[in-house]
Amino acid sequence: MSAPVAVNLAEKLGQFSDHWNPRVVGRYNGNEVRIAKVEGEFTWHSHAETDELFLVVSGDFGIEFRDGLVKLAPGEMLVVPKGTEHKPVANGECQILMLDREGEPNTGANPSEYTRERLETI
Amino acid sequence: MSAPVAVNLAEKLGQFSDHWNPRVVGRYNGNEVRIAKVEGEFTWHSHAETDELFLVVSGDFGIEFRDGLVKLAPGEMLVVPKGTEHKPVANGECQILMLDREGEPNTGANPSEYTRERLETI
Repeated sequence: MSAPVAVNLAEKLGQFSDHWNPRVVGRYNGNEVRIAKVEGEFTWHSHAETDELFLVVSGDFGIEFRDGLVKLAPGEMLVVPKGTEHKPVANGECQILMLDREGEPNTGANPSEYTRERLETI
Repeated sequence: MSAPVAVNLAEKLGQFSDHWNPRVVGRYNGNEVRIAKVEGEFTWHSHAETDELFLVVSGDFGIEFRDGLVKLAPGEMLVVPKGTEHKPVANGECQILMLDREGEPNTGANPSEYTRERLETI
């Protein structure tokens, strides 16, 4: 087997410019490592079968929960437990890294105009 | 349920100074998010039952495989597939984030003087 490949997050983030459309940049134990550019408010949703990890690369990001907003600066991460309603919010453009179970739609159990069911791998 | 907590990686990395002794800073789908300060060469090992994700926060890091060295700069990540022999190397002190299955020893199936079986959560 040849050695695994290094993934440069900035280089991958430079390959696209649309918002709320995650790309897959790696796979780990049945999960996808995803990156996205986001801006504005997403829709309320939850993921019934998977936790969701967020790590902020750049920008003024946050996640609303039913009992309040958690702000996230670059270099900060947060794990949304499965089944937990949340709504990502981005003040200006933000770049984020996420982990989700393989194949999980970005809007989980709550389809909306933002739903992306088949994500591109870059 | 109260909202999940934001984890600031730099703040967590400031809480310890020893090398090759990962701390757990989050849990995701049965996996641990770990951070570590490392310097010099680790030991050859593999993880039979888990992939291992590395994301470099700072420093001049790399991972040796049996067929060559993969260098990793800050902002670069790599997933070591389960069962793959590897040896992390750090030129000077590096700060890294890792993902491993919960409870996995840092030296996997190959105990050495570097083995840490029970990791502290901070």
